Amino acid sequence: MAYTPEQAEILVQALPYIQRYFGKTIVIKYGGNAMVDDELRRSVTRDVVLLQFVGMRPLLVHGGGPEISEVMKRLGKEPTFVRGLRVTDAETMEIVEMVLAGKTNKGIVSLINRHGGKAVGLSGKDANLFVAEKAKGEVDLGFVGKVTKINPEILNALMADGYIPVISSVAIGAEGESYNINADHIAGELAAAIGAEKLILLTDVRGIYDDIKDESTLRSTLTVADAQGMIDSGKVESGMIPKVEAAITAVRGGVERAHVIDGTTKYSLLMEIFTDTGIGTMITG
Amino acid sequence: MAYTPEQAEILVQALPYIQRYFGKTIVIKYGGNAMVDDELRRSVTRDVVLLQFVGMRPLLVHGGGPEISEVMKRLGKEPTFVRGLRVTDAETMEIVEMVLAGKTNKGIVSLINRHGGKAVGLSGKDANLFVAEKAKGEVDLGFVGKVTKINPEILNALMADGYIPVISSVAIGAEGESYNINADHIAGELAAAIGAEKLILLTDVRGIYDDIKDESTLRSTLTVADAQGMIDSGKVESGMIPKVEAAITAVRGGVERAHVIDGTTKYSLLMEIFTDTGIGTMITG
Amino acid sequence: MAYTPEQAEILVQALPYIQRYFGKTIVIKYGGNAMVDDELRRSVTRDVVLLQFVGMRPLLVHGGGPEISEVMKRLGKEPTFVRGLRVTDAETMEIVEMVLAGKTNKGIVSLINRHGGKAVGLSGKDANLFVAEKAKGEVDLGFVGKVTKINPEILNALMADGYIPVISSVAIGAEGESYNINADHIAGELAAAIGAEKLILLTDVRGIYDDIKDESTLRSTLTVADAQGMIDSGKVESGMIPKVEAAITAVRGGVERAHVIDGTTKYSLLMEIFTDTGIGTMITG
Amino acid sequence: MAYTPEQAEILVQALPYIQRYFGKTIVIKYGGNAMVDDELRRSVTRDVVLLQFVGMRPLLVHGGGPEISEVMKRLGKEPTFVRGLRVTDAETMEIVEMVLAGKTNKGIVSLINRHGGKAVGLSGKDANLFVAEKAKGEVDLGFVGKVTKINPEILNALMADGYIPVISSVAIGAEGESYNINADHIAGELAAAIGAEKLILLTDVRGIYDDIKDESTLRSTLTVADAQGMIDSGKVESGMIPKVEAAITAVRGGVERAHVIDGTTKYSLLMEIFTDTGIGTMITG
Amino acid sequence: MAYTPEQAEILVQALPYIQRYFGKTIVIKYGGNAMVDDELRRSVTRDVVLLQFVGMRPLLVHGGGPEISEVMKRLGKEPTFVRGLRVTDAETMEIVEMVLAGKTNKGIVSLINRHGGKAVGLSGKDANLFVAEKAKGEVDLGFVGKVTKINPEILNALMADGYIPVISSVAIGAEGESYNINADHIAGELAAAIGAEKLILLTDVRGIYDDIKDESTLRSTLTVADAQGMIDSGKVESGMIPKVEAAITAVRGGVERAHVIDGTTKYSLLMEIFTDTGIGTMITG
Amino acid sequence: MAYTPEQAEILVQALPYIQRYFGKTIVIKYGGNAMVDDELRRSVTRDVVLLQFVGMRPLLVHGGGPEISEVMKRLGKEPTFVRGLRVTDAETMEIVEMVLAGKTNKGIVSLINRHGGKAVGLSGKDANLFVAEKAKGEVDLGFVGKVTKINPEILNALMADGYIPVISSVAIGAEGESYNINADHIAGELAAAIGAEKLILLTDVRGIYDDIKDESTLRSTLTVADAQGMIDSGKVESGMIPKVEAAITAVRGGVERAHVIDGTTKYSLLMEIFTDTGIGTMITG
Repeated sequence: MAYTPEQAEILVQALPYIQRYFGKTIVIKYGGNAMVDDELRRSVTRDVVLLQFVGMRPLLVHGGGPEISEVMKRLGKEPTFVRGLRVTDAETMEIVEMVLAGKTNKGIVSLINRHGGKAVGLSGKDANLFVAEKAKGEVDLGFVGKVTKINPEILNALMADGYIPVISSVAIGAEGESYNINADHIAGELAAAIGAEKLILLTDVRGIYDDIKDESTLRSTLTVADAQGMIDSGKVESGMIPKVEAAITAVRGGVERAHVIDGTTKYSLLMEIFTDTGIGTMITG
Repeated sequence: MAYTPEQAEILVQALPYIQRYFGKTIVIKYGGNAMVDDELRRSVTRDVVLLQFVGMRPLLVHGGGPEISEVMKRLGKEPTFVRGLRVTDAETMEIVEMVLAGKTNKGIVSLINRHGGKAVGLSGKDANLFVAEKAKGEVDLGFVGKVTKINPEILNALMADGYIPVISSVAIGAEGESYNINADHIAGELAAAIGAEKLILLTDVRGIYDDIKDESTLRSTLTVADAQGMIDSGKVESGMIPKVEAAITAVRGGVERAHVIDGTTKYSLLMEIFTDTGIGTMITG
Repeated sequence: MAYTPEQAEILVQALPYIQRYFGKTIVIKYGGNAMVDDELRRSVTRDVVLLQFVGMRPLLVHGGGPEISEVMKRLGKEPTFVRGLRVTDAETMEIVEMVLAGKTNKGIVSLINRHGGKAVGLSGKDANLFVAEKAKGEVDLGFVGKVTKINPEILNALMADGYIPVISSVAIGAEGESYNINADHIAGELAAAIGAEKLILLTDVRGIYDDIKDESTLRSTLTVADAQGMIDSGKVESGMIPKVEAAITAVRGGVERAHVIDGTTKYSLLMEIFTDTGIGTMITG
Repeated sequence: MAYTPEQAEILVQALPYIQRYFGKTIVIKYGGNAMVDDELRRSVTRDVVLLQFVGMRPLLVHGGGPEISEVMKRLGKEPTFVRGLRVTDAETMEIVEMVLAGKTNKGIVSLINRHGGKAVGLSGKDANLFVAEKAKGEVDLGFVGKVTKINPEILNALMADGYIPVISSVAIGAEGESYNINADHIAGELAAAIGAEKLILLTDVRGIYDDIKDESTLRSTLTVADAQGMIDSGKVESGMIPKVEAAITAVRGGVERAHVIDGTTKYSLLMEIFTDTGIGTMITG
Repeated sequence: MAYTPEQAEILVQALPYIQRYFGKTIVIKYGGNAMVDDELRRSVTRDVVLLQFVGMRPLLVHGGGPEISEVMKRLGKEPTFVRGLRVTDAETMEIVEMVLAGKTNKGIVSLINRHGGKAVGLSGKDANLFVAEKAKGEVDLGFVGKVTKINPEILNALMADGYIPVISSVAIGAEGESYNINADHIAGELAAAIGAEKLILLTDVRGIYDDIKDESTLRSTLTVADAQGMIDSGKVESGMIPKVEAAITAVRGGVERAHVIDGTTKYSLLMEIFTDTGIGTMITG
Repeated sequence: MAYTPEQAEILVQALPYIQRYFGKTIVIKYGGNAMVDDELRRSVTRDVVLLQFVGMRPLLVHGGGPEISEVMKRLGKEPTFVRGLRVTDAETMEIVEMVLAGKTNKGIVSLINRHGGKAVGLSGKDANLFVAEKAKGEVDLGFVGKVTKINPEILNALMADGYIPVISSVAIGAEGESYNINADHIAGELAAAIGAEKLILLTDVRGIYDDIKDESTLRSTLTVADAQGMIDSGKVESGMIPKVEAAITAVRGGVERAHVIDGTTKYSLLMEIFTDTGIGTMITG
């Protein structure tokens, strides 16, 4: 290809954003259709490599909903959910871990590396990254865990050497047992623990709405208090709740900005970062 | 516990071996019953942590035969083998990868970490560690690969920071496709590529026999030429062939000593390393 | 501003070029109208900052023709040239040095820094960067020098710390006297001495022509032998000769590619680097 | 040459002072006749190289009064001063910068390097070392600036690599405009900003006098309060005022000792440093 | 030799202790029969090498009682003691220093090095490690000193490079004179000054007894207050007093545990470290 | 004190020599009256500290003749020499080692440290610096050794941290036995092994003479061949032979210059180094 002057100008317009985020860690919660659709997958992973080459330190956290249910069904197990959380018996946990760490994770790693990046896939078990205990609640969900400690040294070591960590949402318990943890939640906690500059959550909608049915009610910015209020008042729909909670956790933990953006729009990650106004909804302190 | 003088003396007898292998890389092909039996699993992983703490740089490579077949059967697929090699269609490859990288690998990582080590699990896709192409042969085995390039930088980076790499035998192809590779073979090639001091292959028998039915014919040492001769003359039984080939590859690639030992004997790893005469069969140049 | 998807796509298309030149040194001979016209000056310096932020190591070498003559005239001295080379008596040399190192150099440094870069201006006297002796020839040109030694350590030290060196074409003699050196020539020699990946010479025409009056005869690539032949046969016009000689010097000294491009076209530097076909004329080995 | 025992003894007597200042930064305001007289110039620059080789970190700040006025006159501009400060219109500023950064600075650099030192010349524009705004006062002096920020990173980087920074008193404004700043003042501010051990101001008189006409009233030591009192009471003559102010600024900013010494006495720098009683006037907290 | 499984198991049981003390400094006061008996000398020094190879940072402090008296007698001087402290006139001090630094120290160094360690012998004069003044008391003991300053930088530098420091109990005074210092006391002070994890004092008895004549009154643990009480009440016999004082000094100075153990039992050092219950008497805060 | 200009000038004249030897290692064989006379001892050690502070890396090797014989006599042993070499039975060896490593060495260390240097005393046993075997010859001299291996790592480590090594001429044998080695010889071998710039041997005469009785026959320079010839022809007196041999060994081993100078002249070390013509006799290749 050959750049035209108009195209070169666009490149130049990225400079202030490249400077702003130079050397900064950006935690990306990767999920939704952006992780399912082949073209979006290729596009998002290439965008991540670009971020790394222009000096940022991107880091991906992913879950893997549909693939888990699909493998469960092939194995004759019916997925069950209570209030959006997967009931995870021992056999289910084994499937969750195999799919997340063995299939979804390595698929993302492989795509990043094909674009010339150097990705390394990890689960929360590697180097005891995520330590968890059984989540307590009214209903026993089995091996659904709550993270009690994050050991981020391995991430800093890998990023300092130019690697892009790709992390699946599995944690380790005190007895070596595996726990299924919410990928949104852990992305928020990790962003805080690692002192990230930004948390970006990829979803399948444009952002957070006052009224999900009315496109015009999209909120471009929210304070943490606003966001908590919208959860409390029930304005935030169920699937969006963990994402907003993760954003709140991150911002309360010192991350300056958390963003809920539409991962189904090509280049949404770049449009969020290389822009003043951003896209989607930004939650700040 | 409390050490008696007799016990302390045993500790002291380890000193020359600790000195000899200080800072040296030791590639361990982990497999067989030592990877299946719960007590042996605990024992071997603890021994690996011990090696790391007394100054060596251990590194594990594993396959995962029985677990793969078991999951395949649960998914209604019948495992097929041609001359000991698994016929690997696309669906089988997906299962192989899930089981190896998502289940077997993380299980080993988790055990090492419970003993106070810092293990990090990798597949050959991470940081493009193992690059492969389709293995050619008389029969089309599908996604069975032959490694064309090893990129060991990630291993050196992790070991320099005190991590123990645990690597599953999956490689990446030029188009991003996954390949099932023989764990024995890749252990041998990796030992050579990384300049290991030693390659140790854990098996379920005591070593290499002139006549497998006659215990008295165990060979304690073999030259590379001897070993190749035993393969050529059919003395080495089928399951042992890739192990002997791996030992030959390692030694020809500059590794001083390769060992085939009995992983079903508790402490066999330690008995091999902390000894002059060693156990099992040693292959040298 | 806000990026549209079309704009983001253009950014993404830069990725392969960013990867190719990551960590590589690019010597830019800055001159001609690109150094005179205010808008071009702003544009070129911002492009240089962009190159540095996406991982390259740009380094500028400049002369300063028109400004020198202007100050000379203000001081009542008439500039004299013999075959395109300035006759440089002691008083002229003093003016040359004041203008180059005190005015032109600091003006470039200041513009780069306003765009968020970290430029440091040097002359060949700083850290004995360029050591020269009197150039010999039929006519005595006074303090016109020929470089005998380049000491590039200061440049490597500055670039390793993220600074962009901006260097004026003045050298130091054995007795501490100053020498006026040709900026094109020294750019070529420096590119070779520092092991640059690329030398880019900014001029006021599109490149090298077989016939300067016929636009259609622009040569997009030339070998070193071609280029030397065009000088020998008189096809290269006088002002272009030192530029082609610099390109030849660089390529013979190990630089893979030297480029003569049109600095009066906005973004020409980016269009040269972020493209397969390039613009202007490329000289290779 | 050959040392006699008497000469060797003198060398040995320097040891305690070499030990005291080992690794310490010493800011030297270079000016007056020591910068004009050829023999003194050679002598001072060689002394600076000696300081660097015996383990200190010398750093020079210079202005350039006479040379600027001379070039202005050659260009047909009449220098104008208000209360000792140069009225600096745009054209004058251009001349100031050319002379300071292009002539005076490179002359000093060149002399240091001839003595085997590794000097690097900088102006306040390089790496945004000195950022200034327009100085406010009753009279509009044009581009006379007041420093608002010092960015000393480049100095630490250069000194750590064994370079001697030589800095001209020009600063950069928010819009990229140049400012003429008082070299005494900036030397004092820089000594404080960089945590120097000592500030030495070279002048043309022996030090500070109670009565400049009476040699016997030379003060060998002054407290900051004394010094301020002498300015307030008019005892300090006009040319000395900025020097005394610089000394006060430095000491208030944490520098232990500031010295006003006679740069016209050969070796005065060494006699100040390699001595208990010092020469000239010392200002302390 | 060849390890049996039973022996390997003993090795494995050391793992938790190896992990606990990894990278930690352990000060060992070496003395008593363990320093006289040839077999014990070989055994203790080899144990020290083992500690170093499994990741600890051992450091030895020694005195040299019997050897000093022996050389004194050969030189026709009668050793004199006042309350267990050697009366040290100038000639005696010279003998003390020769024996400690020239004979005892180098003997220990040589044994450690024969076992493959890298020992470096130091006295308190080297790098001004121990600075002392004359000890004051009712009786003038001559050159018996009290340490006023410890400069441990040399120890940290040596240990960081893998060397084992062996230090004799001689200190330097303000006028360069030598002082004989109590080896137990200085071991305690050094353990505190260097932030050791443990202080181990080798003696010729099993530990501290309530009644030295009644084996059953051996105390396995004591608090600092207990220990001080036992000194005050006269329960601690005279030879043991400086050892208990050293333990108290160390613990009060931040060392977690100090141990008085029986150096005449082979492997006692290992039995103390590689055990939960320890041997001898442990003093803690 | 206060420097006069005349004194400062002398300091300045040292600059070229300081530059020439900056960062270079200088091995000094310390002996003769310079090690006996109190004032000379203070003087030489202070000169060594000066060399270190002006950027050189001095390193001292010493023997200790008179002190050894004196202690032997006090112990009732009669020193015996065969062709200038001490007959060294086991008891004598013990005395040699005590005196050299425990008295002479620590005395030198202590003097250097009083002058503000950081000396560390070593014998050839420390870190296995000098490994030796029994010297063979017509007469059995007992524990007189010949060095077979030098392990200089400890010296480089200490000098890199700013320490001055002071080394006594004792070596270790394969069985841990001590050997008395010639201090001149080992100084020459060490200078070669460590890549020293210069070897300086302090003696009690002005240098090497064609005829020792005729002052006018002092040779200011000798080639290695000349020097060997003078030994062979018997011109070199017996006490000087090992010194000349050491110089030859050093120069043949790559040291550019070896010097035999008069240590009884105050400042002779400085007069040798800070001069073009040098003093005494210089041996070169």
